Amino acid sequence: VIISGLPSSTIAGRWYTTSDSFSPTDLFPRRHIGPSDRDIEGMLQVCGVSSLQEFSNAIVPKNIRSPKLQLGPVRGEHAVLSELKQIVSQNNTKVRSFLGMGYYPTLTPHVILRNVLENPGWYTPYTPYQAEIAQGRLQALLTYQTVVQDLTGLDMSNASLLDEGTAAAEAMNVAFTFHKKNRRIFFVSSNCHPQTVSVVQTRAVPFNIEVIVGNEATFDPSRYSDKLIGALVQYPGSDGQLVDPSGFVASVKSVGGVAICATDLLALALLKSPKEIGFDIAVGNSQRLGVPLGYGGPHAAFFAVSDVLKRLAPGRIIGQSIDVYGSPVIRMALQTREQHIRREKATSNICTAQALLANCAGFYATYHGPEGLRRIATAINEKAQYLASGLSAMGYNLPLSAFFDTVKVATGEETSKLVQHLLTAGYNIRNLDGNHVTVSLDEPTTQLEVEGLLRAFASFKGKEAPSIDSLSINKTLLDGYRRTTPFMTHTVFNSYSSETEMMRYLYYLQKKDLGLTTAMIPLGSCTMKLNAATEMLPITWPEINALHPFVPLDQAKGYQEMITDLEKDLARITGFDGVSLQPNAGSQGEYAGLMVIRAYHHSRGESHRNVCLIPASAHGTNPASAAMAGMVIVTVEGDGDGNIKVEDLRKKAELHKDKLSCVMVTYPSTHGIYEEHIKEICSIIHSNGGQVYMDGANMNAQVGLTSPGFIGADVCHLNLHKTFCIPHGGGGPGVGPICVAKHLVPFLPGSAVVSVNDPTTSVGSISAAPWGSASILPITWTYIKMMGAEGLTKASQVAMLSANYMAKRLESSYKILYRSQAGFCAHEFILDLRPFKECGIDEVDVAKRLIDYGFHGPTMSWPVPGTLMVEPTESEPLSELDRLVEAFEHIREEIREVQDGLVAVEDCVLRHAPHTLEVVTSDSWNRKYSREKAAFPVPGLRKNKHWPTVSRIDNVYGDRHLCTACVSE
Amino acid sequence: VIISGLPSSTIAGRWYTTSDSFSPTDLFPRRHIGPSDRDIEGMLQVCGVSSLQEFSNAIVPKNIRSPKLQLGPVRGEHAVLSELKQIVSQNNTKVRSFLGMGYYPTLTPHVILRNVLENPGWYTPYTPYQAEIAQGRLQALLTYQTVVQDLTGLDMSNASLLDEGTAAAEAMNVAFTFHKKNRRIFFVSSNCHPQTVSVVQTRAVPFNIEVIVGNEATFDPSRYSDKLIGALVQYPGSDGQLVDPSGFVASVKSVGGVAICATDLLALALLKSPKEIGFDIAVGNSQRLGVPLGYGGPHAAFFAVSDVLKRLAPGRIIGQSIDVYGSPVIRMALQTREQHIRREKATSNICTAQALLANCAGFYATYHGPEGLRRIATAINEKAQYLASGLSAMGYNLPLSAFFDTVKVATGEETSKLVQHLLTAGYNIRNLDGNHVTVSLDEPTTQLEVEGLLRAFASFKGKEAPSIDSLSINKTLLDGYRRTTPFMTHTVFNSYSSETEMMRYLYYLQKKDLGLTTAMIPLGSCTMKLNAATEMLPITWPEINALHPFVPLDQAKGYQEMITDLEKDLARITGFDGVSLQPNAGSQGEYAGLMVIRAYHHSRGESHRNVCLIPASAHGTNPASAAMAGMVIVTVEGDGDGNIKVEDLRKKAELHKDKLSCVMVTYPSTHGIYEEHIKEICSIIHSNGGQVYMDGANMNAQVGLTSPGFIGADVCHLNLHKTFCIPHGGGGPGVGPICVAKHLVPFLPGSAVVSVNDPTTSVGSISAAPWGSASILPITWTYIKMMGAEGLTKASQVAMLSANYMAKRLESSYKILYRSQAGFCAHEFILDLRPFKECGIDEVDVAKRLIDYGFHGPTMSWPVPGTLMVEPTESEPLSELDRLVEAFEHIREEIREVQDGLVAVEDCVLRHAPHTLEVVTSDSWNRKYSREKAAFPVPGLRKNKHWPTVSRIDNVYGDRHLCTACVSE
Repeated sequence: VIISGLPSSTIAGRWYTTSDSFSPTDLFPRRHIGPSDRDIEGMLQVCGVSSLQEFSNAIVPKNIRSPKLQLGPVRGEHAVLSELKQIVSQNNTKVRSFLGMGYYPTLTPHVILRNVLENPGWYTPYTPYQAEIAQGRLQALLTYQTVVQDLTGLDMSNASLLDEGTAAAEAMNVAFTFHKKNRRIFFVSSNCHPQTVSVVQTRAVPFNIEVIVGNEATFDPSRYSDKLIGALVQYPGSDGQLVDPSGFVASVKSVGGVAICATDLLALALLKSPKEIGFDIAVGNSQRLGVPLGYGGPHAAFFAVSDVLKRLAPGRIIGQSIDVYGSPVIRMALQTREQHIRREKATSNICTAQALLANCAGFYATYHGPEGLRRIATAINEKAQYLASGLSAMGYNLPLSAFFDTVKVATGEETSKLVQHLLTAGYNIRNLDGNHVTVSLDEPTTQLEVEGLLRAFASFKGKEAPSIDSLSINKTLLDGYRRTTPFMTHTVFNSYSSETEMMRYLYYLQKKDLGLTTAMIPLGSCTMKLNAATEMLPITWPEINALHPFVPLDQAKGYQEMITDLEKDLARITGFDGVSLQPNAGSQGEYAGLMVIRAYHHSRGESHRNVCLIPASAHGTNPASAAMAGMVIVTVEGDGDGNIKVEDLRKKAELHKDKLSCVMVTYPSTHGIYEEHIKEICSIIHSNGGQVYMDGANMNAQVGLTSPGFIGADVCHLNLHKTFCIPHGGGGPGVGPICVAKHLVPFLPGSAVVSVNDPTTSVGSISAAPWGSASILPITWTYIKMMGAEGLTKASQVAMLSANYMAKRLESSYKILYRSQAGFCAHEFILDLRPFKECGIDEVDVAKRLIDYGFHGPTMSWPVPGTLMVEPTESEPLSELDRLVEAFEHIREEIREVQDGLVAVEDCVLRHAPHTLEVVTSDSWNRKYSREKAAFPVPGLRKNKHWPTVSRIDNVYGDRHLCTACVSE
Repeated sequence: VIISGLPSSTIAGRWYTTSDSFSPTDLFPRRHIGPSDRDIEGMLQVCGVSSLQEFSNAIVPKNIRSPKLQLGPVRGEHAVLSELKQIVSQNNTKVRSFLGMGYYPTLTPHVILRNVLENPGWYTPYTPYQAEIAQGRLQALLTYQTVVQDLTGLDMSNASLLDEGTAAAEAMNVAFTFHKKNRRIFFVSSNCHPQTVSVVQTRAVPFNIEVIVGNEATFDPSRYSDKLIGALVQYPGSDGQLVDPSGFVASVKSVGGVAICATDLLALALLKSPKEIGFDIAVGNSQRLGVPLGYGGPHAAFFAVSDVLKRLAPGRIIGQSIDVYGSPVIRMALQTREQHIRREKATSNICTAQALLANCAGFYATYHGPEGLRRIATAINEKAQYLASGLSAMGYNLPLSAFFDTVKVATGEETSKLVQHLLTAGYNIRNLDGNHVTVSLDEPTTQLEVEGLLRAFASFKGKEAPSIDSLSINKTLLDGYRRTTPFMTHTVFNSYSSETEMMRYLYYLQKKDLGLTTAMIPLGSCTMKLNAATEMLPITWPEINALHPFVPLDQAKGYQEMITDLEKDLARITGFDGVSLQPNAGSQGEYAGLMVIRAYHHSRGESHRNVCLIPASAHGTNPASAAMAGMVIVTVEGDGDGNIKVEDLRKKAELHKDKLSCVMVTYPSTHGIYEEHIKEICSIIHSNGGQVYMDGANMNAQVGLTSPGFIGADVCHLNLHKTFCIPHGGGGPGVGPICVAKHLVPFLPGSAVVSVNDPTTSVGSISAAPWGSASILPITWTYIKMMGAEGLTKASQVAMLSANYMAKRLESSYKILYRSQAGFCAHEFILDLRPFKECGIDEVDVAKRLIDYGFHGPTMSWPVPGTLMVEPTESEPLSELDRLVEAFEHIREEIREVQDGLVAVEDCVLRHAPHTLEVVTSDSWNRKYSREKAAFPVPGLRKNKHWPTVSRIDNVYGDRHLCTACVSE
């Protein structure tokens, strides 16, 4: 789809004003932007400029300043929300979906809905890098991992992946890496969910992996003995079939292949675990453990591996360790984070998780306990049996002898007609293959619904439906497949079964953590801005929440209108012509963008173009993504001031002229700099036949002032969870759409299930769901509508102003790295702590001491080791900026005490930071500093302080004694 | 309405099961009831009984055990919620109401909606009696009071009253008391809201106050110089009229009358304050400061008085004081609480507030600041001017020369037809008097809506509507009425204008307070049970939230169905025939119940029956309510074991035989006892011509086991905020419906605006809104539906079991007062601390020390001085009961140290409790006990502890230096 015309055209007739008296009193920009106009004046003064315009002109190079951004009219918060309500009311939530395919209606316990999903205490925190102020969500994620480990029986689970399709592709890549990339054939059962097959296929291409899609009953692994990477089967099958795949697994393993299953956690409450069957890896979607459908996401995909593959597992892994006093603590294990991504050697660029949704799934299991899960799974199976029994009774042909939740019916030529008939009766069922339908039942299925289904199937044949009471079910149906191993035996799954207990447990965990509800989280490159209530409210509306991703498009008209409108807005903001919202994380956006470039070159008969230039300073995900897109990475040097060395770029572009695919460039740079030569860079690449991929991580400094399209790039990805207000959720979800110039539009991602893009040109599926994490797109939609072009532009300016204000205030205490000749940074700045190495103080000491001051530490040692990168964002109020300045200044004095020899470094307050309540109230206190200095270094803390709940963590211990599940206390 | 038939008949066709496989997996009783079935077994063992049935039989006297309660089928949490959604979807939220009359659509800032109204951290705490763990909501309430004081200009505001009508009646009573009840004429302007006039009239009757309703322009106070209590006018008038009432006020005051206005806080942002005009009292509804309409409530009514009337003000008053270290603290001032109600001397029985809603209104003001309020008020006035200007232009006759938000149109004979015409166009406007309509505009009014109104008025006349742009408004319209005094100048109103700041401020306040999210609140007689998320979710649905209380009944079909259904359930549970949900607090229920009895006697020509027997042990509100109903109180003695002395009762009943109106009896008794003689008591009263009023405060021990109706009472009130799960909101809202036997049904409360009950028999309006606090009734509705008869019965049993389990566990450490011969209490028990007086320890020391253990103290010194009354409720888990037992046992040992002379009482840990963080981390520590003993007396606290934020409060200081508003820090 080429996007044209003014965006936001949707509001015509829904809202307008022509008179000032009717202008909304609830305008959002003054709520979103932290500093008031008066504060801004003062901050400008500190920076030595007189207006925001003058200020941003001093920063943004003249040749890339774009004309004024044009978007629709700005309305107030309530008007935008009611407009969205009108739009999404066009979604048809009356039709009941029994489509299965890894997505199931589920009952979110309301105690979890209200106190987790709808609670900023849970959705605003960041990834738990600072474990001392993140024990709450770390505990929750460890619980989630325990659920996955227990149900799959495997040795280790990660803290979740993006979706089942990606998880399956990651599993293939783990197997590929396990075989040191020496094998190139991968088997995928045709009874896997079609979107999973498709994502795996897309991912296989750049690695030259041959994917054989077939029937595992007839596939003979021994024919590929030295070549088979592994095999993926769905257990139970996508069509509902339940067989014991032990034999096939054994034959795969007999040729050294890695056996992988895509499976269903709820089914595993009743069925033999993957471990018992012999699988090495199990993946799947944990959505049906209480996470709303949301038209495709976000949900937490799970990923569990056997011992031997542990160190190859992608994504984040939460593990136990100890603190410096030997007390048990939880933290991210194995350093699986962005900065440690294996760059060009990577087969994965995953550096995130779906933490918020994983937590919900884990809490669902916590609340229900093993008995509850068994009860729910049993009820689902029995309901499916009643349906099957009724269908049999009226003469339908049911080919499966065993099934968990999905009833398969052989319907031959009448399949489409039957599906249509059921739709008319109010039910979506799946047309499996033109000859069969399937009906997948779920936790919410009621007797009325099963009776309705039976009546609809009956009336199709002109028969009467049998009554439920006249039917019988077979209590031994699952006997050959039943699991005998216990699961979820830890006390956490058997302690919180009343709502009071659960609610208190959730609050107990929440209050351990520092989120945006408590203080600023000044993480460079992460843009921890306000996640406004108005933006978040729609997430749990049923119109947003209750839709299956594969409903017929005419049941999702509201979603389609909102999505199209959002695409228009984003295209306008980035200066591009086409948008894909499918990538559900920044990493997926990068990968998708590069795949689009790859497809473009291929379409022009230039498939040999595979060199990707990447600056040395790039995020680790950049080379990892390039590697995944099958590119050869050539590193471009920096100039020592945070900029790309243009001459080196030119040299390498020309050197690789014939094979040049693209450059990947972050703008403003990862050092927080508006490079002057960006247009020149673009033109060098273009003149050498390459494309320009712009990493949108720092888009928060661009919106309204310039744009990737205006600058001359061909593709960019956006992090909606950075610039566009999607909350970080304690470590996910994110959304990483890509925006592209006109010539690249035909190659945008598609879907194997829903018609999204021309399949003959599209790069294929990047994510499992056609529009990725659709249910959180309203956050960005509302943000843009409420801010309007002016508000967004001002936000960019204030984001930069806040950074520069802080840098100015701090420049007498710390060395500030990488500012322009005019003395300005962009929207973030780097504090150099290397001078203090000499006296034994490093960036970790400072970050941990900041916890004592009630702050989350900034980004550590990235992009420059030994530094801290601070990004305040526009939504932090001046008072909070000043509070952080005060803390940094105080810490500087604390460092000086060490520098001046007043206190030995091993005795200093920094080294022992952070200080827990238990430490400072202890009857024994033998520190060289006072309790009050430890706890209340500045007076404001006496009134309001967030305490770390554990002392500084021993990371090495944890990695040596890897423990990734709850163990008895 | 006589209620008959099975309740819950509404679900037919919406949900059912006939097969176990379809029984809901989300059944609620096991979530609501804290102890698991296994826990219950163990608890029964401790109590020496073998089953719940045996246990409750041992407690509930045989002659009052009712047959099994019959209610509808139990469904799961999700089914009940979706059924409610279906029901309330019948409410018509498409028609836009411009009805005014003290209720206005408003824009609740979403940051307040999500983080206060929808947040159990704010809605589950109790009334802030324990100020050390309630500084958050106390600060919020102080802020609310400051808003009211500033906008009215008066010297003191209370922390809110129930509704504008009640507040006006309370104002009349203050004036009545001020005149030492020597004057009996009260003037009420006929331009007050009709429901206000009606509530005042009802309240005047028992006090023999003559209410003159008339036009203040023609009423001459000097004619009533020694008789006039005072006068109430609406400012601006109910019809919109804006006049300066200074002259009338002066004439009222010249004869010593108290000048009272009912007013509008938003209007006061622009208009001369009541103080400037000369009013002594200002009352009104703060609803339009961001509190949803909710079909009538709950909202916070305000009440402000001038200096001289301060000590007569009803309700709660929040004031500043200091703690023992001299630090500023906030707490309830002037001991205006239940136990200090002036009993039979009272002219008010108010002992509660609408804290949650007052907080929302205060936060709305905090978020908008004075400028924001001015902007909103100005916009409303200008929008109204545009409407007026357009109506004039098309020839409508507008009689008012000045108005704030309400446009009055003289429409003569065509009034009804016009109202109907507007309705057809989608607008509710008010038929003022058959000759005029009014249209009241509000904050959300959009240009589209005003244009729509103009079009509708135009088409009624067959004309074209003028465009907004062709109209002009008069910027000087309000010039003669404008306020010149500043308001809301305190920093709190000028510090939180960005959403980030506001959100953090709300969390900062929240985390100071102990709510049910943190720990149990074992308050005897207050039943602090779970407020489940499923029950709370509907409160903020637009179908519940957005309805004006005076819409035509056919726009509220959903409400009507739910209300009728709830009435049926409550009638079934109480064993009665009629229910009124109008009383919006327990006190109002008592008053309403007695008024019904009064009306009954009057209807039988026995208006002389005015003696009300009340046991000495009764809640203070009982005699206060009786006084308000014009009754003479005769106290009945107790037998020393917590029971009524039956012989004394018989004696007094017979003595007053000819004048006996009723008895008021709490059951189980206020001492937590199931009196054996209750049936006998009823029959004594009946045989002497009286009626039995049963106070429902302790209904949580009765549900499903017995009922007031079965026992033989004639009326009871219920506290839906105790037994039926409405949260306490940090000190309100509550709901106090009454249930009555058949012969009393005709006398149930009515409404001056909506047809509710036969006005010829009804006692009249008790509250302003026809169904009181309608929007929180879904809480009780869902609770009953989800629990079902069995679940409710089990809840009663477990509530009693939990109390008895704790009492048994504690009986070796403390003396337990008032248990039956079999050794059982009902659902609460009393710990006698009087033996420790000797060594200097009292109940306050123990309650404050419990804070150190992370608990809210139990009820202190009521009903017996020197004791604590503990009510655990059924929803507390066993682990929490055990934690409280552990705390009490530890405290017993701490007392023993004093008793044994190991530590002097003035040095002991109890006397210095509670201990704040600042105290225990202080560099100077010179206590006779350790820091760890102070902070972590039991090991569990190291993992999870709630800290008090201030030290023990000096109440006397605060009352001597009364300060009821924010002062600069």
